[in-house]
Amino acid sequence: MNKLRSGPIVLLTDFGDIDPFTGILKGVILSINPGAVIVDLCHKVPPQDISCGAFMLDTAMDYFPKDTIFCAVVDPGVGSSRRAVLVETCDYFMVGPDNGILWQAARRNIIKNVVHLTQSLYFLSSISQTFHGRDIFAPVAAHLSTGIQPSALGDPGGELTRLVTDEPAHVDNGLILTVRHIDTFGNIGLNLTWDQFKPFLDKGFCLQVNDKVITGYYQNYASAPEGRPFVLNASTGYMEIAVKNSHAAAMTGISRHDKVLLTAK
Amino acid sequence: MNKLRSGPIVLLTDFGDIDPFTGILKGVILSINPGAVIVDLCHKVPPQDISCGAFMLDTAMDYFPKDTIFCAVVDPGVGSSRRAVLVETCDYFMVGPDNGILWQAARRNIIKNVVHLTQSLYFLSSISQTFHGRDIFAPVAAHLSTGIQPSALGDPGGELTRLVTDEPAHVDNGLILTVRHIDTFGNIGLNLTWDQFKPFLDKGFCLQVNDKVITGYYQNYASAPEGRPFVLNASTGYMEIAVKNSHAAAMTGISRHDKVLLTAK
Amino acid sequence: MNKLRSGPIVLLTDFGDIDPFTGILKGVILSINPGAVIVDLCHKVPPQDISCGAFMLDTAMDYFPKDTIFCAVVDPGVGSSRRAVLVETCDYFMVGPDNGILWQAARRNIIKNVVHLTQSLYFLSSISQTFHGRDIFAPVAAHLSTGIQPSALGDPGGELTRLVTDEPAHVDNGLILTVRHIDTFGNIGLNLTWDQFKPFLDKGFCLQVNDKVITGYYQNYASAPEGRPFVLNASTGYMEIAVKNSHAAAMTGISRHDKVLLTAK
Repeated sequence: MNKLRSGPIVLLTDFGDIDPFTGILKGVILSINPGAVIVDLCHKVPPQDISCGAFMLDTAMDYFPKDTIFCAVVDPGVGSSRRAVLVETCDYFMVGPDNGILWQAARRNIIKNVVHLTQSLYFLSSISQTFHGRDIFAPVAAHLSTGIQPSALGDPGGELTRLVTDEPAHVDNGLILTVRHIDTFGNIGLNLTWDQFKPFLDKGFCLQVNDKVITGYYQNYASAPEGRPFVLNASTGYMEIAVKNSHAAAMTGISRHDKVLLTAK
Repeated sequence: MNKLRSGPIVLLTDFGDIDPFTGILKGVILSINPGAVIVDLCHKVPPQDISCGAFMLDTAMDYFPKDTIFCAVVDPGVGSSRRAVLVETCDYFMVGPDNGILWQAARRNIIKNVVHLTQSLYFLSSISQTFHGRDIFAPVAAHLSTGIQPSALGDPGGELTRLVTDEPAHVDNGLILTVRHIDTFGNIGLNLTWDQFKPFLDKGFCLQVNDKVITGYYQNYASAPEGRPFVLNASTGYMEIAVKNSHAAAMTGISRHDKVLLTAK
Repeated sequence: MNKLRSGPIVLLTDFGDIDPFTGILKGVILSINPGAVIVDLCHKVPPQDISCGAFMLDTAMDYFPKDTIFCAVVDPGVGSSRRAVLVETCDYFMVGPDNGILWQAARRNIIKNVVHLTQSLYFLSSISQTFHGRDIFAPVAAHLSTGIQPSALGDPGGELTRLVTDEPAHVDNGLILTVRHIDTFGNIGLNLTWDQFKPFLDKGFCLQVNDKVITGYYQNYASAPEGRPFVLNASTGYMEIAVKNSHAAAMTGISRHDKVLLTAK
């Protein structure tokens, strides 16, 4: 049995859970490294939503041990000319399509090395046109976990493809924000950091969400009143809209990618 | 690499699966104990439903090995004054908020020791107001799995918060029961044990479920007729209403927390 | 601690994820073999759909290492006279109900030995009428993983129950196909292999799906035009209908088990 030489292999995909896709990735990995420790980060990235996958990777990364291998597969361009890459950062390894999904997290952890994955010795022997998670990314992550050097996996990869991130848009007296994510509890994740929100909070703020106006800020769910949407500094480092013991998105009729307006009073 | 000194760490939450929350818990645990064995018990406790989480923990507990560490996080009071606790029972360790989720299972396995988790040395270095699963409960479970003594994790914790459980209500000639859970197959879980049901079965029973009257009892799904709801002694030790190869909850129009009336003929 | 003597134990069920059922299987396994490596293949086989489970097992099997133990539980006949079996094939072990779920995969990998699981020493001490996954199949898989010989687990098992598979039906100038599965992305899986499709592709084909006519074939999603359903050779080895960056099943109004007509031009 091979000995594990790395941190865990962490899987992030849009594969969902009604198919055996993620189970197959694990079979491929354990066939190469029977001692691999495999962790599911999330498999419900909305289909083909590279930005959402990139955001999840970025906000989760720091909680994993040094030398973790992230295998991030949201890959609408599978089978096309988009490259397969490995990124070595200060603390981690990341494997996936070069479509932007890795960029945000890799840049923050500082990119040391990018490898264009061309060495088919480390792929499955037969490569499909539609499932490179199984045929390329999982095998490469597994080989890496056995101690194969990044440089052996391909050619110098140059620059990573950047992701166009959705920043708040400035308007008179405020910001137009985008709903980035609705979580399990119905909390509405915004593309607004605490530092961006702070000046509005200090002056008194007004957040327009469809026909509702939100002016309350609380530090946690328990201290808020029932039934009234409020703003909260979420555990991701970004602001969210929540309703105590209730589903904020359903209550406000808001969906992913919708816009909300933040102004100072 | 630290050596695993405990049974597995078992996670039970209402975090769902569309976010990276449960993956992050695992990253935190493996950062502290790279050799930890982590098992997902269930992450689809209905949001904030402490009773449902407590029931799952209680009915699943006995199937895990001695020294398993259960980390149960259904925590609507996160960030408030509710305590974080560790319970040591005859066979197990349980970590979670002291809001009742641990009580039912801990009491049944016999409580030996309660620790109020106050020793921040064993938390993450930065504690959010909204995600103590990540910042407190997972790290404490991980440290415990490396052999840290319960007494090192905080102060003597006194009594656990009790859960108000939903017992059948007595009425003339019968019992008013509560629907506790609808499972994946549509089977309707009742708050009625075999011992409570037995006298009704012996005399002939009548179960009123919305506009349907159920009088059949079968020992398994296969021996029941198609299309007719019946009563069954479920694998949890509680009675359930099922329909062979069909979805009993949809067929009877029943939902979680609804009431049904059991009478003797 | 027992030493792992086998490949991983791979779980395939229709248990879903809103209950603690799959977590309980893992508790049972780790109680018997604390060193077992457990992999979830899929737990969202549609309830009681033996054919779908058999198809998943068959298409996923080859990606797992030699000596993997598959524990496949889609078991509408639980508690009835259907047998519990272990199958030893060239490369693998398979444990489950003898209702056809194992047959397709086992036959392809070549069946060496069938054992009728009768040796209750290797079951849980108390056997329910409704949850043999927990009480029989998981414990047997776990004991097998510790090195117990198949022959010790029961009696010679004779023939496996065969599955009636849904083959394309021949009609004038074409084939009537069945929709076998809709995946997470909305891709429509057909019961049609590449070899069966090839003659139609060579002559020019026409696929009638409800009121839509599909004539396009592409090798991957990226090379197809947006908004138009097309045929693709899926990663399973079977043909599928897809729409680039969209949900083909929703767009065509098709469901599992529906029929579509393939003709040559």
